Amino acid sequence: MIVQMKKGSTKKEYDHITEFLKSKNLEVKDVSSEAVRIFGIIGDTSTIEPADLYAFDGVQEVTRVSTPFKKASRSFKKGDTIIHLNHGIEIGGDQFVVMAGPCSVESEEQLRIIAKGIKKAGAHILRGGAYKPRTSPYAFQGLEEDGLKLLRKIGDELDLLVVTEIPSADLIPLFEQYVDIIQVGARNMQNFHLLKALGKSKKPILLKRGLSATIEEWLMSAEYIMAGGNEEIILCERGIRTYEKYTRNTLDISSVLAVKDLSHLPVIIDPSHAAGRWTMIDKLSLASLAVGAHGLIVEVHHDPTHALSDGAQSLKINKFTEMMEHLEKVADVLEKKIQ
Amino acid sequence: MIVQMKKGSTKKEYDHITEFLKSKNLEVKDVSSEAVRIFGIIGDTSTIEPADLYAFDGVQEVTRVSTPFKKASRSFKKGDTIIHLNHGIEIGGDQFVVMAGPCSVESEEQLRIIAKGIKKAGAHILRGGAYKPRTSPYAFQGLEEDGLKLLRKIGDELDLLVVTEIPSADLIPLFEQYVDIIQVGARNMQNFHLLKALGKSKKPILLKRGLSATIEEWLMSAEYIMAGGNEEIILCERGIRTYEKYTRNTLDISSVLAVKDLSHLPVIIDPSHAAGRWTMIDKLSLASLAVGAHGLIVEVHHDPTHALSDGAQSLKINKFTEMMEHLEKVADVLEKKIQ
Amino acid sequence: MIVQMKKGSTKKEYDHITEFLKSKNLEVKDVSSEAVRIFGIIGDTSTIEPADLYAFDGVQEVTRVSTPFKKASRSFKKGDTIIHLNHGIEIGGDQFVVMAGPCSVESEEQLRIIAKGIKKAGAHILRGGAYKPRTSPYAFQGLEEDGLKLLRKIGDELDLLVVTEIPSADLIPLFEQYVDIIQVGARNMQNFHLLKALGKSKKPILLKRGLSATIEEWLMSAEYIMAGGNEEIILCERGIRTYEKYTRNTLDISSVLAVKDLSHLPVIIDPSHAAGRWTMIDKLSLASLAVGAHGLIVEVHHDPTHALSDGAQSLKINKFTEMMEHLEKVADVLEKKIQ
Amino acid sequence: MIVQMKKGSTKKEYDHITEFLKSKNLEVKDVSSEAVRIFGIIGDTSTIEPADLYAFDGVQEVTRVSTPFKKASRSFKKGDTIIHLNHGIEIGGDQFVVMAGPCSVESEEQLRIIAKGIKKAGAHILRGGAYKPRTSPYAFQGLEEDGLKLLRKIGDELDLLVVTEIPSADLIPLFEQYVDIIQVGARNMQNFHLLKALGKSKKPILLKRGLSATIEEWLMSAEYIMAGGNEEIILCERGIRTYEKYTRNTLDISSVLAVKDLSHLPVIIDPSHAAGRWTMIDKLSLASLAVGAHGLIVEVHHDPTHALSDGAQSLKINKFTEMMEHLEKVADVLEKKIQ
Repeated sequence: MIVQMKKGSTKKEYDHITEFLKSKNLEVKDVSSEAVRIFGIIGDTSTIEPADLYAFDGVQEVTRVSTPFKKASRSFKKGDTIIHLNHGIEIGGDQFVVMAGPCSVESEEQLRIIAKGIKKAGAHILRGGAYKPRTSPYAFQGLEEDGLKLLRKIGDELDLLVVTEIPSADLIPLFEQYVDIIQVGARNMQNFHLLKALGKSKKPILLKRGLSATIEEWLMSAEYIMAGGNEEIILCERGIRTYEKYTRNTLDISSVLAVKDLSHLPVIIDPSHAAGRWTMIDKLSLASLAVGAHGLIVEVHHDPTHALSDGAQSLKINKFTEMMEHLEKVADVLEKKIQ
Repeated sequence: MIVQMKKGSTKKEYDHITEFLKSKNLEVKDVSSEAVRIFGIIGDTSTIEPADLYAFDGVQEVTRVSTPFKKASRSFKKGDTIIHLNHGIEIGGDQFVVMAGPCSVESEEQLRIIAKGIKKAGAHILRGGAYKPRTSPYAFQGLEEDGLKLLRKIGDELDLLVVTEIPSADLIPLFEQYVDIIQVGARNMQNFHLLKALGKSKKPILLKRGLSATIEEWLMSAEYIMAGGNEEIILCERGIRTYEKYTRNTLDISSVLAVKDLSHLPVIIDPSHAAGRWTMIDKLSLASLAVGAHGLIVEVHHDPTHALSDGAQSLKINKFTEMMEHLEKVADVLEKKIQ
Repeated sequence: MIVQMKKGSTKKEYDHITEFLKSKNLEVKDVSSEAVRIFGIIGDTSTIEPADLYAFDGVQEVTRVSTPFKKASRSFKKGDTIIHLNHGIEIGGDQFVVMAGPCSVESEEQLRIIAKGIKKAGAHILRGGAYKPRTSPYAFQGLEEDGLKLLRKIGDELDLLVVTEIPSADLIPLFEQYVDIIQVGARNMQNFHLLKALGKSKKPILLKRGLSATIEEWLMSAEYIMAGGNEEIILCERGIRTYEKYTRNTLDISSVLAVKDLSHLPVIIDPSHAAGRWTMIDKLSLASLAVGAHGLIVEVHHDPTHALSDGAQSLKINKFTEMMEHLEKVADVLEKKIQ
Repeated sequence: MIVQMKKGSTKKEYDHITEFLKSKNLEVKDVSSEAVRIFGIIGDTSTIEPADLYAFDGVQEVTRVSTPFKKASRSFKKGDTIIHLNHGIEIGGDQFVVMAGPCSVESEEQLRIIAKGIKKAGAHILRGGAYKPRTSPYAFQGLEEDGLKLLRKIGDELDLLVVTEIPSADLIPLFEQYVDIIQVGARNMQNFHLLKALGKSKKPILLKRGLSATIEEWLMSAEYIMAGGNEEIILCERGIRTYEKYTRNTLDISSVLAVKDLSHLPVIIDPSHAAGRWTMIDKLSLASLAVGAHGLIVEVHHDPTHALSDGAQSLKINKFTEMMEHLEKVADVLEKKIQ
């Protein structure tokens, strides 16, 4: 960390802050010139938030030299993290994984029809909401535990892995019993209580980016889980909130490149929540592959107009099948393997 | 809800969606003209999300006629909600309540010094974080249960009410034992699991607006709690995330007026988290009073440079005392009562 | 337009607004039910801004039925607009055009080296700033008229078309003398004085999206030019401003799909200004092609570290050449033609 | 400016960038430690944009030590800038100036009625649009030169100063003939061509903040005008664009405090464009006074429902009169003088 003092700041102010830092077992290296009083902080600065140093009189600006995340950082680990799952599925590296399924699990029949459809089209991971975070308390809230059981049942029937969103830490044991990947929803990205608890789980975590989270905060949330011991994290970009209203959110496709630069963790894209319009999914999926994402999570429904949630952004099965064919063609020339 | 069909949409498409709605026990009123096919939906539309109707072929636009929240709505209740607390403290109406205290509870001595200071300056509610939501897992996470006990102890000593943030639903019984108002932090505003559980609590809830929540979503989160039976909610504006970086967040002062127009619930302002700079708090507090907020929640510390969190935005006790004097003067001409 | 009156609004209020509308030669169609007073406005509503109707007492909500733009609208014209330029270059349809060159024209030698490089790599249109919009008045402001002359000279030498940004309406005659496409910069997207004047020009216009413009506003700016008679407009997405700071702006890649849905005009992407980092350009260009953009405008420099502006986002010539090879491979399977 | 090199960057990379800087007559001060290679740049760095230095291999981060604006900066001038106008009106310091009038000048009669109303209520400066920047080319564009003449005529009749928005640089001589203060609209805040030309004018400039401009960019736009020699600038906050749609824009009230910290220039607030709802103006005006703004610019109309633009945000004359009374009461206790 580099701390620059204000013009006109005093020696006493300088001493105050530097003595505080030394009392925290940090080393201070003075690099002041005649023009400006400035110093570097050397040591483990992860416990200090730059914001707190502004409380000291005379401080003009505090700049981080290193990223605030450690285990999630590219410099922590050689090579990309690749997550190995059942049925030989891998997430990360040159693989391009496709997760698909309904927004909500509605019934055994519904789930089976959709799961067969996505399996036939080439997907290997089934998604579906059992506990639904809805903005209205009066809207359908999901089948809850019954939904988990159906996911497992259909998953086993068709040799599909399953991923679904967890609403709170107390349900971790239940989720571990039924699912292959535990999803943290965008609205829970900074539910630190949940993140800490997931750090103790053995299941890979799919961590969605918050609606207005910076990339750094997103990686700090991954760090929370990793700090607890669970290093199998798949990041998922799902669009950020902006003033543009034609799409539900604004897909920040560049975030894939930022994450790959900053971290060794795999990163996938959720075009369904980003766009909120099924007509855009096919093209956004191709763009996701082209930009270098490690995969997709896509909403698919056999009958979107009767879906209990998010029908507008769900692909019909035949459209999903076409999308997979388009992906295959482009993956070929990019030397990526779709699974 | 009003549904407008696309130009060139067919009778079949119209029949498809209207029959679906009728099957949900809703009434459809056709108001089409030659130029456009359009209809209204009459009945309890709270279980339908406009987004879902876009899944139907031929739909151009879906517009809400009424707000999606009911119990939180101005039309639900005559007059403003006024929350009655111990020591005769009231929140709402013409009262202007000031909550103050440290970002984090650090020790009994620290809390007592600060609590005495704010009490003497005229505040009646003590704030202080016991469970701290920090972006870094390596930063100070709070004294947890010990922090709650200290808040209660000092609160009882000095006849101050206490408010503090809850991290998860399983801690509700513990919080109910120690605090007078339970705070939901900005990052948990859409932790629906927590909101539902708080709907069963007897304690008033201080509900912070999420970093990028719309006013409608914020009121929907209040609705979640109210739907469960707890109607004592204090809304708190604490700044929203924008591209502007001079301040930590952008204080949306107009949201106070929006909330007062849309809802009967009281709404206060947190200038400390909004600005992130203590130098701005005095003036932003005056503006909060002038705009018609029902109160403030402010960070105060006797020694901000040694605070364990958010020192940069904490007022020293003497500055807080000055702020209270400024508020008193303006409150007088506005016929508000500071407490 | 559909106007919904408030609950409790009066007959008098209804009469007031509807008589006003009739006085503007618009037809009013009452579609009120018992639950809600509501009416449609039929006729040419392009001269009415919904915002103005909110001035009438009793108005709850005003909703547009049709887009506010006409000539720019998909419904105005069958098929896509294809712009035909010299040397047989076409923009629109299945063509994928690449414009490339330095941020600023710095010297004849610099421009010739870069122009040869991009020509050899397969680009047909040369970009380069002559009048530079810089945030600081003390930064290099461009070679101005000399820059225009150099662009034309090198363009003619190498059979390249040239595009450059215009700063104000009085320079249109000069620009028409030297350039093939006139660019309107993001900061001038709503310089309506300039847009009106360009409506009288015979040159195609490259219209960049403003930093925080909605897609609708962007198309309204196109409409301004088209209303004046000039219908050859190329839209250019260049990233929007958000709170994310890792990239210079956030590339809104979905806007390409929105524009293609709403309008018949071609739309290209500027990944250089969006990302602000040359390391991201290759992948973002592939994504742009995959999503269906009609082309790219990319910054290229032979020596970015000595560029007079925006060095950080400029590709070296060899990297640009690699990018073109990657594009060729993917274009093949997508049945697009790169030019 | 401080430049920090990447871990693993080479001596050659360090030499490359530092030699470049020396060739620009800047001094380089090496302050590297074992942990990190870092140096400061000393001298006039105003011609260098940090972004350009990122083009050099090995650069990790570039941080400004001083603000990019000079003449607009607090450190440039002792004390606040106070602008002295005819009739003894002053803007800046402890004065609180109120500018008011219709969105658009529509007719002599309309303007006279409104001007008399605001004069009687206590305002001294008349606003009114003559050249209107409308998002639709089909909407009313203003009376243009006739509007300027009417403003001058009514202003002279009633001893009111007049302020109105200029659309382009070629109209400066005309504006100088008719108006007392020339306004730069939000959409032209970065029309650098216009700003440069206004630097040569003798009239004070009212500079609105752009829809998504940072405070730093806003002050840089002031710097453009000041660099040309015109140092009489009044900054005007008018709301920024966010995702919140209940208000037209989000009033960034804290920006007043930021400007007063960073600059010596006066800063006023436009609550009408910020809120877009006349019902909010009274309270937002009080908040503007309380936060320390140097004044207001407010839309007033005698008959908002028949206004040709922005009726929804215009106060009726009686409401404006009430607002002025409220302001007087609060100004008294704050020791501000309303004019």
